[in-house]
Amino acid sequence: MKDVLCPGFKAAGIASGLKKNKAEDLGLIFSETPAAIAGVFTQNQVQAAPVLLDRERIKSGLGRAIVANSGNANCCTGEKGIRDAEAMANAVAEQLAINEKNVFVASTGVIGLPLPMEKIIAAVPDLIAALRADGTDAFARAIMTTDTVKKVVARQGKIGDKLFHITGIAKGAGMICPDMATMLCFICTDVCATTDALQRALKRSVNSSFNRITIDGDTSTNDTVLLMANGWSQADIESPQGGPAFQSLLDAVLIDLARQLVKDGEGATKLVEVAVKGAASEKEAHQAAQTIANSPLFKTALFGEDANWGRIAAALGRADIYINPNTIDIAFDDVVICRNTSACGLEAEAQAAKIMQQPEFTVTININCGTCCASVLTCDYSIDYVKINADYRS
Amino acid sequence: MKDVLCPGFKAAGIASGLKKNKAEDLGLIFSETPAAIAGVFTQNQVQAAPVLLDRERIKSGLGRAIVANSGNANCCTGEKGIRDAEAMANAVAEQLAINEKNVFVASTGVIGLPLPMEKIIAAVPDLIAALRADGTDAFARAIMTTDTVKKVVARQGKIGDKLFHITGIAKGAGMICPDMATMLCFICTDVCATTDALQRALKRSVNSSFNRITIDGDTSTNDTVLLMANGWSQADIESPQGGPAFQSLLDAVLIDLARQLVKDGEGATKLVEVAVKGAASEKEAHQAAQTIANSPLFKTALFGEDANWGRIAAALGRADIYINPNTIDIAFDDVVICRNTSACGLEAEAQAAKIMQQPEFTVTININCGTCCASVLTCDYSIDYVKINADYRS
Repeated sequence: MKDVLCPGFKAAGIASGLKKNKAEDLGLIFSETPAAIAGVFTQNQVQAAPVLLDRERIKSGLGRAIVANSGNANCCTGEKGIRDAEAMANAVAEQLAINEKNVFVASTGVIGLPLPMEKIIAAVPDLIAALRADGTDAFARAIMTTDTVKKVVARQGKIGDKLFHITGIAKGAGMICPDMATMLCFICTDVCATTDALQRALKRSVNSSFNRITIDGDTSTNDTVLLMANGWSQADIESPQGGPAFQSLLDAVLIDLARQLVKDGEGATKLVEVAVKGAASEKEAHQAAQTIANSPLFKTALFGEDANWGRIAAALGRADIYINPNTIDIAFDDVVICRNTSACGLEAEAQAAKIMQQPEFTVTININCGTCCASVLTCDYSIDYVKINADYRS
Repeated sequence: MKDVLCPGFKAAGIASGLKKNKAEDLGLIFSETPAAIAGVFTQNQVQAAPVLLDRERIKSGLGRAIVANSGNANCCTGEKGIRDAEAMANAVAEQLAINEKNVFVASTGVIGLPLPMEKIIAAVPDLIAALRADGTDAFARAIMTTDTVKKVVARQGKIGDKLFHITGIAKGAGMICPDMATMLCFICTDVCATTDALQRALKRSVNSSFNRITIDGDTSTNDTVLLMANGWSQADIESPQGGPAFQSLLDAVLIDLARQLVKDGEGATKLVEVAVKGAASEKEAHQAAQTIANSPLFKTALFGEDANWGRIAAALGRADIYINPNTIDIAFDDVVICRNTSACGLEAEAQAAKIMQQPEFTVTININCGTCCASVLTCDYSIDYVKINADYRS
């Protein structure tokens, strides 16, 4: 069964010739009525043209459509890049007879090459003709780069007696790191919301989902998360129960998508939660988890299924947080392999090695210096990670 | 011809059974007379037992011997680890009839396993018997872990009419990052020096050599650089010409060793200098160079010989320094491939791709925001890097 977008939205994805293999590479999401829109963008100082455009347009708080392409990031493309992003939006706006200021743009792919505009403009009529309520999957495929599977999550909830929907579509794969990375995520919902409330909810959800995952520590120039709310359900997120109900469902959708991103990280064979406990502050716990989760030596050991906890201790020691170097405990799932910074013996290590053979497990590091904790999801560094990224453009 | 240590020093390296393949794994450097000693150690908060021991002993400023082993890091080994490091020094001191407080210890290898002390203690008589003036190579092999070649540099200089010598021996391979990493380096010289002057000179040289290289961004628990000066040449580094003459030769020795470390980085096929110019401060230039030099996406592109400068711009954008995102120039050797953050065309890219086929080249990033610059040496991320580190302990 195809995933259906939330009521009042349509989507499409077609092949415009940007990708070499004739796969879908141009996608469109259309809101039949004006929607409130919220957005979160990359923290990278070098930002792609569509990000610069969207940042400007989102000030109006109103969205009608999102046009996205894969195969080219439209980044480091100067003034022409900005004009190209505008032209992409204009072509869509004209043919949908909507205000171009309410059309948002996203691009992902290679940096530094101009967008092949003639291909995109020529494809817009077909793109619009392809719009349908069950176009989610086609759109999801159109934004994939090195992703191996599409990422779509559709959920529903209730505010009072009003049923509401949230559908999220994302792409990820490489360059996933704190504060997001070449990841695009588009979310449609039919709740009633002011732009401000929507923005607050989105920011909070992004912090507990996309900002808690890492694939390779690199941060992209094109990260974009956009959330449109059309109000069709009449479920109001500013009603007393509305806020929590919407937030928890939005959290669930984004956390689910975030897990899917890490699981499909470039060359990844394992999904690993790095949980740091006993830190002096949540910030320090997060920093420690992030440092470990990004350590190439830790990540290659995950790939090798080697319970080499010394690399975890070494990464923790350079995380620049408060620790006592003699009170570190490390566990793989529930097997404690290191206590007070010393090995627990060969049997524990053998058990940990078995746990590492699983596709998903948790590494818990207790610093024993405080009461705060934080988790980061990561994946392993495999031979395929290198192969994919050495050959990306060829 | 074998490298000869500097006058007044002897070295040895033998197999004690710590490594599986019966290769040399235990080394000794002995100063025939008391020497001034200076040291620089890891910045990691988790520190191996020998590092803790040496930090304490170096306060005396006097060194006679350095005993080092590979195959086991003696780190995260608790109180027993400290006693083991002391016992290693004691065994050497007793049989050399010197004060044990003047014996320094270094270990490198797997973290978290106790040192097989019986093997080490049993091997000490053979180790001492093997001491000779041309023992440099055997010692250099004894400290190798995943290094594929030994690293020795011997140079001589003059202060006034006095000839002096500096011999440096190092090991590196993985975990090399700012503020050093599992790297050991031992330097013998026959200049006259106070401990203070020696320490200042060493710190300065380390800053311009080992702290300017990176292999994988991971920092080790065992980094140790020790410099012994026995005064035999009567060349005084505190004489007017003495300081600069010694400093520049020490710089040259350490920079040469640092280059050798990166060149022999785990799985490395290329030695690449990342030079950042036009930064607002030297600190920011260094930070930018470091961020680029550690980016997994940049490093895999180096391996793939893909002049994917977009990844350089993206890494620069997340380096957390002052930049203008529209004024970035990027060159591979003398071929400018990106100007004002835009591509210079296919011909430049083709030329850059040719440059990347070389085993050594420079990537220059001009931020055009200031007058400061800094360089970092790095290597590529290859398939072998993952293989080596996934299988390290097996």
